[in-house]
Amino acid sequence: MYDTIIIGTGVTGYGAAMYAGRLGLKTLLVGDTPGGTIILTDRVENYPGFVRLTGQELADNLRKHAEDYKDFVSFKENKATKIEKKGDKFIVHIGNEKAESHTVIFATGTKWRELNVPGHDEFMNKGVHYCALCDAFFYRKKTVAVIGGSDSSAKDALVLTEHAEKVYIIYRGEKIHPELPNMKRVEAAKNLEIINFTNITEIKGNETGVTSVILDKDYKGSRELRLDGVFIAIGHIALSDLAKELGVSLNQKGEIIINRKSETNIPGFYAAGDVCDTNFKQAITGVSEGVLAAYSAYEYVGNLKTK
Amino acid sequence: MYDTIIIGTGVTGYGAAMYAGRLGLKTLLVGDTPGGTIILTDRVENYPGFVRLTGQELADNLRKHAEDYKDFVSFKENKATKIEKKGDKFIVHIGNEKAESHTVIFATGTKWRELNVPGHDEFMNKGVHYCALCDAFFYRKKTVAVIGGSDSSAKDALVLTEHAEKVYIIYRGEKIHPELPNMKRVEAAKNLEIINFTNITEIKGNETGVTSVILDKDYKGSRELRLDGVFIAIGHIALSDLAKELGVSLNQKGEIIINRKSETNIPGFYAAGDVCDTNFKQAITGVSEGVLAAYSAYEYVGNLKTK
Repeated sequence: MYDTIIIGTGVTGYGAAMYAGRLGLKTLLVGDTPGGTIILTDRVENYPGFVRLTGQELADNLRKHAEDYKDFVSFKENKATKIEKKGDKFIVHIGNEKAESHTVIFATGTKWRELNVPGHDEFMNKGVHYCALCDAFFYRKKTVAVIGGSDSSAKDALVLTEHAEKVYIIYRGEKIHPELPNMKRVEAAKNLEIINFTNITEIKGNETGVTSVILDKDYKGSRELRLDGVFIAIGHIALSDLAKELGVSLNQKGEIIINRKSETNIPGFYAAGDVCDTNFKQAITGVSEGVLAAYSAYEYVGNLKTK
Repeated sequence: MYDTIIIGTGVTGYGAAMYAGRLGLKTLLVGDTPGGTIILTDRVENYPGFVRLTGQELADNLRKHAEDYKDFVSFKENKATKIEKKGDKFIVHIGNEKAESHTVIFATGTKWRELNVPGHDEFMNKGVHYCALCDAFFYRKKTVAVIGGSDSSAKDALVLTEHAEKVYIIYRGEKIHPELPNMKRVEAAKNLEIINFTNITEIKGNETGVTSVILDKDYKGSRELRLDGVFIAIGHIALSDLAKELGVSLNQKGEIIINRKSETNIPGFYAAGDVCDTNFKQAITGVSEGVLAAYSAYEYVGNLKTK
């Protein structure tokens, strides 16, 4: 019987695990993606305390910090597939096993939002990609486009400019909106061009992979833009399904509704990080929510045990 | 005219300044205590990402991170003495000067709660202290007591055990309640003794300093405990006066009431860190609140400028 089971091994889960251990909770940390999505980022400049490091380095720092409390925290690299509540007890299905706990800290994060156009599925991983850091290298001296106008889109495009000969950012809105340092880098990049107010309606290719995309309006006299790869960065979807099945309240975007103590509507069930309804989702805010969840779990378990 | 004036130069203010700079806000960071109260802590083990460092090192890391955005962030080492609001504009009095801004991020933190007993004022800094890290060295081979049962009290006592011959923790409650690793260190310390369920009612001394304290019940057959120094760690008081004068809503403890966006009841006025009504106040949660305040200020200023 654990005091808490933390589901999710991103920076949020690690931060929660470190504090849970520090607070003396018997803790199980479960997840199938060590480090979480931040390891796909090559430049993190906004986790206060580290001027600049890679996402992998930040995740490693937080993991090591959690491992410093191994007397209390166990790690299981596997996927949680179901959560049940029986009385005061949570039962978490992990692979073929089950584990029981007094509380759950849910920090599963997000997955990429997919672009739903003809050609997407056909050319997935054959010219259509979601991780610039993983796949930019294959586009050495080639032409690629990033779809999307966020800070992540800009960072993906910047990674690609270091390999590809030409990078487009194709954005449906008026102006891309990365954080300022990244906007300046975008403006300074000589092989980067932004196409605003434009959607792509189809991805075309042949047996060797992607060859072009079709735009919903003319660009330089044509609706067809020749390129070799498309990197999609149009946002994320909260991985909240297991929580939803348990009856946890979500907002309209499918994000878990939490309060300032990282409490949800279900007593003993806490949530933190990108899976939540936080306005401004950053590594630092997720980790802080994880810490607050660990403290709420600690108080809850203390009350249970003195009942 | 600044976009934001951040009042307070603890880790929370630095975190807010870094993000404000990153978001391109013209920012003034004002405070008279660089690094804030955390620099009085010798062992920080719970800022996720750093397994162990001193409070001074953590503050330095955050300050340097903020300084990395010097194009946007100015620093003024001085005390803010008054805040006015005229229309959409805040006017902050700093020493003999005034500065104007669209928004304020208030991160002034706390001060020590004073122990109100006879002898306290008379022997202040002559045996009565609030900063173990600053003053422990003067009690080499002597006998001292720490008053209080919190994690801070335990950490102060542990610092003192390295210098003094004998350290007492005197606590009014049933059992001191530091975080678990510090509780274990307290239990392992050979020259440390805990006196529970006890208050001190007077501090006595002579022209050379403190000589004893009077307890409200017998300890080992006497109400008088001979010692050379008293370190007081009975909590903190939110430094919220300037905000209160402006009409910012406080809770019963005098802490500023914020929401998950670090907003207060006054539009454009944000608060973060130990001065706020957060349940579990930690360096990480304060920094996160500072980051959220910077983002809220960024959105607010953007709306003002497009009005």
